[in-house]
Amino acid sequence: MIRMETSLRVRYAETDQMGYVYYGNYATYFEVARTDWVRSLGTPYADFEHKYGVMLPVLELRLQYHKAATYDDLITIRTEVRTRPGIRIHFHHEVVNEAGELLVTGEVVLVFIHKDTMKPCRPPAFFLEQIDQCWQES
Amino acid sequence: MIRMETSLRVRYAETDQMGYVYYGNYATYFEVARTDWVRSLGTPYADFEHKYGVMLPVLELRLQYHKAATYDDLITIRTEVRTRPGIRIHFHHEVVNEAGELLVTGEVVLVFIHKDTMKPCRPPAFFLEQIDQCWQES
Amino acid sequence: MIRMETSLRVRYAETDQMGYVYYGNYATYFEVARTDWVRSLGTPYADFEHKYGVMLPVLELRLQYHKAATYDDLITIRTEVRTRPGIRIHFHHEVVNEAGELLVTGEVVLVFIHKDTMKPCRPPAFFLEQIDQCWQES
Amino acid sequence: MIRMETSLRVRYAETDQMGYVYYGNYATYFEVARTDWVRSLGTPYADFEHKYGVMLPVLELRLQYHKAATYDDLITIRTEVRTRPGIRIHFHHEVVNEAGELLVTGEVVLVFIHKDTMKPCRPPAFFLEQIDQCWQES
Repeated sequence: MIRMETSLRVRYAETDQMGYVYYGNYATYFEVARTDWVRSLGTPYADFEHKYGVMLPVLELRLQYHKAATYDDLITIRTEVRTRPGIRIHFHHEVVNEAGELLVTGEVVLVFIHKDTMKPCRPPAFFLEQIDQCWQES
Repeated sequence: MIRMETSLRVRYAETDQMGYVYYGNYATYFEVARTDWVRSLGTPYADFEHKYGVMLPVLELRLQYHKAATYDDLITIRTEVRTRPGIRIHFHHEVVNEAGELLVTGEVVLVFIHKDTMKPCRPPAFFLEQIDQCWQES
Repeated sequence: MIRMETSLRVRYAETDQMGYVYYGNYATYFEVARTDWVRSLGTPYADFEHKYGVMLPVLELRLQYHKAATYDDLITIRTEVRTRPGIRIHFHHEVVNEAGELLVTGEVVLVFIHKDTMKPCRPPAFFLEQIDQCWQES
Repeated sequence: MIRMETSLRVRYAETDQMGYVYYGNYATYFEVARTDWVRSLGTPYADFEHKYGVMLPVLELRLQYHKAATYDDLITIRTEVRTRPGIRIHFHHEVVNEAGELLVTGEVVLVFIHKDTMKPCRPPAFFLEQIDQCWQES
């Protein structure tokens, strides 16, 4: 299992008239957390698309909302990858506030697509090596 | 079961650099469809909050992505409520493009909250009557 | 001058905790209005990018906020192009609510860029012809 | 003059199909920068609304786009307040990338509104004191 934490502040733009973070914005928060997770392994996700011709569209998103986040809250998104990615990669997320209260749990499944063929493909070799190395160290 | 269809065009703002609709935007599309569904029963959702003191935060969101939507696509969101709402209301959605291809399926579960107590509550009586009447007619 | 009107309903996602439409969302409303304006001349804007290799990034945006729009408001965006486009095209917008109250005024200046050279270019010939024809008819 | 710098990474959600940051998102970046600027003086903006009953809706927004930002760019928003705020407060912004290239310049004018009266009002006294103190120190 490879774990990471990403913290960010809720923007005014992300609230709605209930005074809560609009429910769709957690998809963006998860994206920010995934990007951090991938970068922490050694290669920015931007390189996947530009250098390796691989895209990662989302196949599934699941979210459970436990407690609302509000404007200016400093929230932490915990990200875990529990299984070695194949054609798909599966992220588990938990969002907590500064008091440690659980706000949201969620999962995102993405698929590796090669830009030339637009077909599903195996993850780039360097990425699997980075994951394996990280697993051994942890 | 009460069914409805809502059509809208994909905005440039809703695309991402893959050229697809960003995955989080379907939460907004579902919101637009729910709003239409509620209005079609007879009372705009805005009145729930302003006149009846009831809010409807989201408890769960589930999305499966089958095919991408792109800029300027005219997409249709099919909305169904299959069971009489209690404290919770459960929406099923399908998104299709103009060719009738299935793009996205999803579900949203919301909870009725009374603004005075901030506790879960039964749906407003007028709303259940509207649903029951609609069920009898269909 | 070529005028057009586009109406849309304010989405819950577009409100903020003040209960107003978040100020940045008018950029998106203007985009929706521009898209409608271009389509009304005869060619969807999507074809500019895909068939003619021309993009239209924004150079300038100016907005004055007079009165707030709120959730579920049916707003109308009035769009005018007052001068024949050269390398740049200049849009004037007014947003009004159902009561006819002026909410927002704004201007957007965009530049035609050829995708092959990534340099500014003249508008596609077909587009200027559509504009000239529209001007003669009005 | 009171200056500040805020850095953030461009999110995938903020790109569009041109591969650039969608033009409306700079309004959100400016909001993040304003929030940081206000916090740096000593009081989070959230307290303005909750403790002091003062809101700050936007009156004017002006943006000039010089060069595009792309996904994962680390951009810096420079924020300046050049004149002591009265009923209005005026922010100047510059956005630069890691190479120091100027991407966007802009201005935002906001108005202090008292929530009880919904009328324009003077800024809270503590805020003017914080500004004056900051001016003396700089």
